[in-house]
Amino acid sequence: MRAVTFQEPGRVAVEERPEPEPLAPDDAVVRVEASGICGSDLHIYHGRVQIEPGFTIGHEYVGTVVAAGDAVTGVREGDRVLGTFHTACGTCFFCRRGVYQKCDEARVFGHGATLGSLQGTQAELALVPRANMTLRRVPEGLSDAAALFAGDVMGTGYHAVVAAGLKPGDTCAVVGLGGLCAVMAARAAGASRVIAVDTVADRLETARALGAHAVHGVEEDPRAAVKSLTEVGGVDVAVDAVGHPGALDTAIRLARKAGTVSIVGVYAERAEVHMGVLWIKGLNVISGHANVMGHLDSVLAMLATGRLDVSPLVSREMTLEDAPDAYAAYDRREALKIVLRA
Amino acid sequence: MRAVTFQEPGRVAVEERPEPEPLAPDDAVVRVEASGICGSDLHIYHGRVQIEPGFTIGHEYVGTVVAAGDAVTGVREGDRVLGTFHTACGTCFFCRRGVYQKCDEARVFGHGATLGSLQGTQAELALVPRANMTLRRVPEGLSDAAALFAGDVMGTGYHAVVAAGLKPGDTCAVVGLGGLCAVMAARAAGASRVIAVDTVADRLETARALGAHAVHGVEEDPRAAVKSLTEVGGVDVAVDAVGHPGALDTAIRLARKAGTVSIVGVYAERAEVHMGVLWIKGLNVISGHANVMGHLDSVLAMLATGRLDVSPLVSREMTLEDAPDAYAAYDRREALKIVLRA
Amino acid sequence: MRAVTFQEPGRVAVEERPEPEPLAPDDAVVRVEASGICGSDLHIYHGRVQIEPGFTIGHEYVGTVVAAGDAVTGVREGDRVLGTFHTACGTCFFCRRGVYQKCDEARVFGHGATLGSLQGTQAELALVPRANMTLRRVPEGLSDAAALFAGDVMGTGYHAVVAAGLKPGDTCAVVGLGGLCAVMAARAAGASRVIAVDTVADRLETARALGAHAVHGVEEDPRAAVKSLTEVGGVDVAVDAVGHPGALDTAIRLARKAGTVSIVGVYAERAEVHMGVLWIKGLNVISGHANVMGHLDSVLAMLATGRLDVSPLVSREMTLEDAPDAYAAYDRREALKIVLRA
Amino acid sequence: MRAVTFQEPGRVAVEERPEPEPLAPDDAVVRVEASGICGSDLHIYHGRVQIEPGFTIGHEYVGTVVAAGDAVTGVREGDRVLGTFHTACGTCFFCRRGVYQKCDEARVFGHGATLGSLQGTQAELALVPRANMTLRRVPEGLSDAAALFAGDVMGTGYHAVVAAGLKPGDTCAVVGLGGLCAVMAARAAGASRVIAVDTVADRLETARALGAHAVHGVEEDPRAAVKSLTEVGGVDVAVDAVGHPGALDTAIRLARKAGTVSIVGVYAERAEVHMGVLWIKGLNVISGHANVMGHLDSVLAMLATGRLDVSPLVSREMTLEDAPDAYAAYDRREALKIVLRA
Repeated sequence: MRAVTFQEPGRVAVEERPEPEPLAPDDAVVRVEASGICGSDLHIYHGRVQIEPGFTIGHEYVGTVVAAGDAVTGVREGDRVLGTFHTACGTCFFCRRGVYQKCDEARVFGHGATLGSLQGTQAELALVPRANMTLRRVPEGLSDAAALFAGDVMGTGYHAVVAAGLKPGDTCAVVGLGGLCAVMAARAAGASRVIAVDTVADRLETARALGAHAVHGVEEDPRAAVKSLTEVGGVDVAVDAVGHPGALDTAIRLARKAGTVSIVGVYAERAEVHMGVLWIKGLNVISGHANVMGHLDSVLAMLATGRLDVSPLVSREMTLEDAPDAYAAYDRREALKIVLRA
Repeated sequence: MRAVTFQEPGRVAVEERPEPEPLAPDDAVVRVEASGICGSDLHIYHGRVQIEPGFTIGHEYVGTVVAAGDAVTGVREGDRVLGTFHTACGTCFFCRRGVYQKCDEARVFGHGATLGSLQGTQAELALVPRANMTLRRVPEGLSDAAALFAGDVMGTGYHAVVAAGLKPGDTCAVVGLGGLCAVMAARAAGASRVIAVDTVADRLETARALGAHAVHGVEEDPRAAVKSLTEVGGVDVAVDAVGHPGALDTAIRLARKAGTVSIVGVYAERAEVHMGVLWIKGLNVISGHANVMGHLDSVLAMLATGRLDVSPLVSREMTLEDAPDAYAAYDRREALKIVLRA
Repeated sequence: MRAVTFQEPGRVAVEERPEPEPLAPDDAVVRVEASGICGSDLHIYHGRVQIEPGFTIGHEYVGTVVAAGDAVTGVREGDRVLGTFHTACGTCFFCRRGVYQKCDEARVFGHGATLGSLQGTQAELALVPRANMTLRRVPEGLSDAAALFAGDVMGTGYHAVVAAGLKPGDTCAVVGLGGLCAVMAARAAGASRVIAVDTVADRLETARALGAHAVHGVEEDPRAAVKSLTEVGGVDVAVDAVGHPGALDTAIRLARKAGTVSIVGVYAERAEVHMGVLWIKGLNVISGHANVMGHLDSVLAMLATGRLDVSPLVSREMTLEDAPDAYAAYDRREALKIVLRA
Repeated sequence: MRAVTFQEPGRVAVEERPEPEPLAPDDAVVRVEASGICGSDLHIYHGRVQIEPGFTIGHEYVGTVVAAGDAVTGVREGDRVLGTFHTACGTCFFCRRGVYQKCDEARVFGHGATLGSLQGTQAELALVPRANMTLRRVPEGLSDAAALFAGDVMGTGYHAVVAAGLKPGDTCAVVGLGGLCAVMAARAAGASRVIAVDTVADRLETARALGAHAVHGVEEDPRAAVKSLTEVGGVDVAVDAVGHPGALDTAIRLARKAGTVSIVGVYAERAEVHMGVLWIKGLNVISGHANVMGHLDSVLAMLATGRLDVSPLVSREMTLEDAPDAYAAYDRREALKIVLRA
């Protein structure tokens, strides 16, 4: 079968790879009809996340079940399905608490040996372990492109605001518009005002079209904007969608007293944090990978009924064979999201 | 001053009444510019809620502060304000927990001696005790009619779904379309589907226009409708907006296992409840007056930013002097909401 | 193997039965070393719960894993384990929300065809489906008798108060001292006062020894007792541990405004409920089977570290062969709990 | 009247000061019978918190109401009362959400102009603004020394674990045994294991007596201790009771995946934080001043019923006139808590 593989920083290839076969009773094999290229793929592309050359990449996928083990009960052969970016066992300490993203046996698709040696989904076929947890039927009427989002970035956007406790009527700031899905989720969750901060004009424009107050992070003053738009000089929930100390600092500044800072941007290292401001404001913080699996039903229901509409975020569709060009285009920020069709 | 007073079942009058004066340091006096007629007023009109003849009625109001005691700090003379339908002390056991509707010293406007002997707001002037808790400035740009809703029915609609724990993507049924505000709140809070059940065609039509699936409670089968519209054969939150055992039974039937039944309809007596169904489904129940004061900031923010738009619900505006006609028309269900202007 | 079977109302037998064998990859077989007789068993014994004559009964068990399917990863052959009274799939809509007691595929041990046709655990061997969810290793140092409680009644006691939102310092009433575990859990959770209501002197004495204020439900006035023992004339959490309209009425009366009524007693039919009192107080209700599986880690940790000590509740140990006598003694209320040893 | 005043770093004095008089309708004057010396007083004593020379210090107090304004309804002249360390208005945005510690008009006793110019309570008389919010009657039978704790450090201990979401059966680590009240609260809240980390032998000994596993922070390895004492290699709640980057780092290391770090130790500056560890573990953080006023009822109820017993923490009682010696002794860590009697 054909598969997109990492070769070296800045280079991916489309290669022939052996077809996967289900090994465990709860494995399934999915014929991938559409897969997405996501910001995390770019980390691999840039060599910041180390994976073995020749490893198949990709972790957003929609397709059809072509094989399923005996213990797979949630989906059947022939079902049109989508999957989450990682697997979860469903029975460990963390899964039993519904914290699926911290499952002791979680494996991430397309991230090499360090995250579970699970081949990626930018391929004609994908092996999906723990299929009862990892796969879900695509609700009728939902497009491939929309379904793709549910298992990764839209789930993250939902998590960024809902897991942070945003209530209808609350205010929200999203720092870094890789977090456009968080903007969308905040609106859909009833936020009265969403302030979107970035430095890229296109993204600010999209945020504005989604109903946010768009604020340029350098040419404008986000703190002044938030002050003028909120009753108490700060937002209820401030999302750091970047994963950089500067963004975190902005989020801490934009949150109101006793507000919540929601860190969905990735951190891997030590950073200087203004603990004094955080503490004196009495902020709460949530952090880490989104619980995409836990939110999947909700996100799918919102996509299927039009409460979330991700179509403004899909800027290009290409074929699997075009993957090298697609990665290069995505790297040049020519598209918010690229969908690769089989 | 002129005031609408209860005379006897089926008859209200507009009479001359002495002007109120602030007595306590946290009292304020408001010149009422618009007041609403609400379903609770109809209970009085019908004689089901007993109040003294000659007592001024009404409890939804928008106006301007014309006097304020020394301890009033939240609003000032000249402020355009709205108020909640009841007062709260802010310092008792219940207020300290934010359960303002159960304040040990709560008084309800326009409900006679049994609910605190506080003259109503369908009058030219209203005395507002506990002004720091009870009044809030009307956000700029918000119409009188919209602001009226915040202090009573829209706060109740918000409570019906948000206090019941509705999360974005959840499904919701509203039994009884006196609960149109609950329909609206559920949509604004991100409900993926809202099923609205009633037997009045106009109300069903309005619910449909608000984005709900409208189901005739007799001519159609609400349970079948909910089954076909939800993944698990029941809704996450089922609202009883009627206050009648039949409605409660329907809500219990429509809720999914481990779902929540939210009872905002008023109960005053014993009733037969299918405890077996409730128990075997493992339902949760919330009940009682809405925490309108607790939700006021959120509801106002949503009204001010257009996330909630109550204009479809205001079907008639009349003058204070027209009150007898207005009550009669409202009693004939000719309007969803009537606003009386000073 | 030997097994306790239901014969007819008032009669159980110890019979020879075929040994179970694991069929599904996530089945296990447990050699039962101790099983408990519980109030639910009495419902069967009395014929109120219909099950097939000859069906093995019992659902509280501790033992050793003697066989496990390929997909069983949570426990191994030779592990000393305890189990919950029901199985859960771990992957359905309800399990994904952690509401294991409402699992779409839940099966209850020893309750016949109506609850999943799963043979009971008062036997030398028990087949345990969904072993990854249903079984847990017994923490070192924990006695059989204590471990037995974790999978059923102590989990229910924990649920009764913790799922009802009891916070440290809160007050709690337990109506019906089949709920002694709820008394114990409330104390362990930091309740400042626990009021225990029953009419059986022994149970009241035990409750008193556990730190509760014991109140005779007929000879004393529970409402007066609660009034004198609480700051606001009612308790934060009132548990109905009986499952009878009278007990529910008492719980509703004893709860404070905006308090929670926690119904762990079983209801199967319609009942008259004072909806007026419930509504005007603004009570919340939780109901249904306890989420024993969801609370299992917590309960085990508390038993293992001595924060919960169930030894006062085990009043008799007998052998499996003595089951007919044991049921008769339990029926005569000669013991709070009887443990059957293999 | 006599009052303890700050003079210069390392020196306090007992001086004559004018008696306070109630000015606002909700002011009260309390004749202080006992006041505590607390860790925050030491910050003033050391000159780290700047306050005006001659300013009366102290913020823990028990006494009798000797005067009360017209709007004071919660307590009366002659009542034996305790108070919280700060005032709150009860009606601002933050108070309306029950986040009293972030009240827009909060004033802290005995902390000079920067925190509201409110004279301290280590004096014969204290002016208490917002008396309805700030004062509470001392429950019958509660000693002065115990009541003192409720309005400050015990409220903080309760907050450290309860606001962090600790559930019965959870595990907890307390880093820094200025947090002995957190150890006590965790135990009382049903924690299955509490691991207490410090380097001072006396404090470790006290923690052990309170039921904690005491671990020397330098001579032992707290991470190894937590690994051996918890099922998943980390605690559910890790408290940083110090306010120093090293303690925060330890707390982050000791928390389990998806656990909560509760920062009650004070931060005033930037600090290097291992965001990578925090993020990959998916930790939640709560921070800032404790909501002592919000927890006051609960803490008092637990003290009054013996669920919390602070007597092991009161190591010395002295007189107000002895204040200079008392501060010196407390500075030498000769006592866990010193109570000054009038």
